[in-house]
Amino acid sequence: MRILLIGATGKLGAAVHETLAGRGHEIITVGRGGGDLRLDISDPAQVTEAYDRAAERAGTLDAVVSAAGDTPFKPVAEMAAEDYAAGFRGKVLSQIELVRQGTARIAGRGSFTLITGVLSRDPVPTGSAAAMANGAVEAFVRAAALDIAPQRVNAVSPTVVTESLADYGDFFPGVKPVDLAQVAAAYVRSVEGGQTGQVYEPV
Amino acid sequence: MRILLIGATGKLGAAVHETLAGRGHEIITVGRGGGDLRLDISDPAQVTEAYDRAAERAGTLDAVVSAAGDTPFKPVAEMAAEDYAAGFRGKVLSQIELVRQGTARIAGRGSFTLITGVLSRDPVPTGSAAAMANGAVEAFVRAAALDIAPQRVNAVSPTVVTESLADYGDFFPGVKPVDLAQVAAAYVRSVEGGQTGQVYEPV
Repeated sequence: MRILLIGATGKLGAAVHETLAGRGHEIITVGRGGGDLRLDISDPAQVTEAYDRAAERAGTLDAVVSAAGDTPFKPVAEMAAEDYAAGFRGKVLSQIELVRQGTARIAGRGSFTLITGVLSRDPVPTGSAAAMANGAVEAFVRAAALDIAPQRVNAVSPTVVTESLADYGDFFPGVKPVDLAQVAAAYVRSVEGGQTGQVYEPV
Repeated sequence: MRILLIGATGKLGAAVHETLAGRGHEIITVGRGGGDLRLDISDPAQVTEAYDRAAERAGTLDAVVSAAGDTPFKPVAEMAAEDYAAGFRGKVLSQIELVRQGTARIAGRGSFTLITGVLSRDPVPTGSAAAMANGAVEAFVRAAALDIAPQRVNAVSPTVVTESLADYGDFFPGVKPVDLAQVAAAYVRSVEGGQTGQVYEPV
């Protein structure tokens, strides 16, 4: 398959890239800081540009997979309204735009795989913007799946990953981490499987 | 208790008003089209004004309850990026601002009760923006509860209400409706109870 991968330079994106490429797929990478297409998808116009340039380069895409999304972490009392708006633009609208603009662009039975995370269901202090964003994307996925069939849309919602425990472990006391390989496997399941409207929680 | 009620002119808001007033609470109503304070909380500056004017009128609030939130309904293919942004402003950021700005304003053990809805978990076609908004608010509630304790925050997430079946029943084929009185009771449970971080699903 021809797959557009957003967020390829992060730890998760690199693992997803390696896993999907290892299964014989052709990957076009998009990133703010690197990749085949250097673009910031939190700007809807750059989502359009990503699709335009991917089409020139590779023709019709079979799948779009996202491993990118930024949200601020602060206690509610230290947040500004703009922090929540930034979380919306950086993780919600950015990924919704991949789907909204993508339905007319990708293959008739193509798929979208978005990234969320455990905080929507299992919150931590300072995580209200991240939780908001994850909850938004997960509910969007369940609903959008009804509208876009036979195209498909799923989310991957990992807990803290084993390979990032040194950086983020303190946020998740007592939480069993998940190996990056299992998170990447959830992307494979979404891209190559037939399910839609699912929120995969890799373990 | 002194309670600020947002969205008092809607069918749900009127029922919540009547139920809370009937339990002896003092209610100050806020609405775009009517109420004690005529304001639009989708503008963060008007949330500030609502709190300022409510304080002048009634002193310290014990609870803030929201029965207001607008989102567009269209198939994903007919949505614009602005439709999702409007849903965010109209139902997500508006209610987050009630909490974010309210923590420094309401009583030390006061509470916030927000409105979501069934579409986050049980979607319908054309409901992707509503689902997104509901999922965002529900996840925010679970996470924000950790930060704002001993103040509390919950959501009420009704399915289609019996009294609105004539208008919305066609969107919910085969779904068992819930009586407005049971939805209002969930607000009572949130305001007068001790729980926090909950998403009440009245039946």
